[in-house]
Amino acid sequence: MSVALTEKLIEDVRRLIRDQERTTLGNLIFEMQAADVADLVEHLEHEDRLFIIELLMPEDAGEVLLEMEPPVQERILDSLDAEAITKIVEELDSDDAADLVGDLPAERVKEIIESVDTGVREDLQKLLPFPEDTAGGLMALEYVAVNANTTVQETIEKLRSKREEVENLYYVFAVDDYNRLSGVVSLKDLVLEPPDRRIKDIMNPEIVSVNLYTDQEEVARLFQKYDLVSVPVVDDQHRLVGRITHDDIMDVIEEEADEDMRS
Amino acid sequence: MSVALTEKLIEDVRRLIRDQERTTLGNLIFEMQAADVADLVEHLEHEDRLFIIELLMPEDAGEVLLEMEPPVQERILDSLDAEAITKIVEELDSDDAADLVGDLPAERVKEIIESVDTGVREDLQKLLPFPEDTAGGLMALEYVAVNANTTVQETIEKLRSKREEVENLYYVFAVDDYNRLSGVVSLKDLVLEPPDRRIKDIMNPEIVSVNLYTDQEEVARLFQKYDLVSVPVVDDQHRLVGRITHDDIMDVIEEEADEDMRS
Repeated sequence: MSVALTEKLIEDVRRLIRDQERTTLGNLIFEMQAADVADLVEHLEHEDRLFIIELLMPEDAGEVLLEMEPPVQERILDSLDAEAITKIVEELDSDDAADLVGDLPAERVKEIIESVDTGVREDLQKLLPFPEDTAGGLMALEYVAVNANTTVQETIEKLRSKREEVENLYYVFAVDDYNRLSGVVSLKDLVLEPPDRRIKDIMNPEIVSVNLYTDQEEVARLFQKYDLVSVPVVDDQHRLVGRITHDDIMDVIEEEADEDMRS
Repeated sequence: MSVALTEKLIEDVRRLIRDQERTTLGNLIFEMQAADVADLVEHLEHEDRLFIIELLMPEDAGEVLLEMEPPVQERILDSLDAEAITKIVEELDSDDAADLVGDLPAERVKEIIESVDTGVREDLQKLLPFPEDTAGGLMALEYVAVNANTTVQETIEKLRSKREEVENLYYVFAVDDYNRLSGVVSLKDLVLEPPDRRIKDIMNPEIVSVNLYTDQEEVARLFQKYDLVSVPVVDDQHRLVGRITHDDIMDVIEEEADEDMRS
């Protein structure tokens, strides 16, 4: 629910923390969106911030941390032990996990990478090398891709198996036998086409994609020019390697507009 | 297809226009995305621009006009007769139609409103009164809404009936018997849930919406804060009246970032 951040709410939360009313506070926060909890937390003292972060499930704590102003986020991460950060990182989408870990001191990065589970470690090792302002630095490894010969029904089953893992899913990517990007199908078409049709017959082969090393400014320009909600990222052999979604691009557009005005 | 705008392409196009090679030029442009045709057209002389706009089907001409820089668009509209503009307006989404018509001189607005077909006239009369920088000025009337008691299967049928009309469709809105907004269902859930389930049992009732008179800056803030791809617009009685999509908001974010830096 969208909760207005009032002085009263902040006061109530301070009191609940002082009285160690974990259940009441937990219920209150559970009703709120991550971005609103982040706003709230930013209005508190450091110790109270930690109280709230530690009260949250790792998944929610991660979402809230991501919504915070960088200095506040950094100070909280400083105070959390490696075990707590590890649990949080394991619950995040790969791009967010890489952003969070990438901002930590080198020592801690090593510690976290060693303690997260194998899948997350592999994702971090794939994503951390890319500069933050390139497509590789923006992309996530969560997306749904199928071979272009797959049927609509098989694609829906694949979607089902990735239901929890992939959020903001509006398109399915199609690839050839060498994992090269060959087209895109909207979920609208997937809902409306007969189950036995093949993806290659309904996909749009005229797909905009970006290379791993495309600059974020160029990525943002393509989102605006072609009204994209997501864009596939490919390597030099045009193999599909990731996906950038519009929410990450809205921040880039703002950042780049600010930079352009300053220069 | 994404076509690089080269000097050679521009020269080829100039030559095709000079030689009145309508078919070759038509085939070339048909392969291009609207935003790319707009870029190309902006590099031509006024008479050549008109040649291309007149060569396009009204639907494509509209998309291309929308992608142009405002002064170029204005000059072309100045040169087109009311009949041509009417045909173009009838093919556009309601929000784009209102933007295009709203920028015309009052005399011409009247002329266009009188000549478009009834449905388009009603849409224009609904949208034109809203200030450009409010939710009402940004919203489109193309969206899919169903009563919350509708089943998944019935919702899919509704989607099918609106397939061509509604683009960028990632969510279906749910309303109560008084057309008041009650929730939202993603197309992902619609694909994966059993056909006989009711929307009210799968919808997310915690939905972010904006009022008709919400300022565009606040709308953009909500898109960024909650990572939205679209937002429903409601009137003072919380009745659903329109939808704003992320592509219109990307432009607002850039505009507002520019303004903030200037002030």
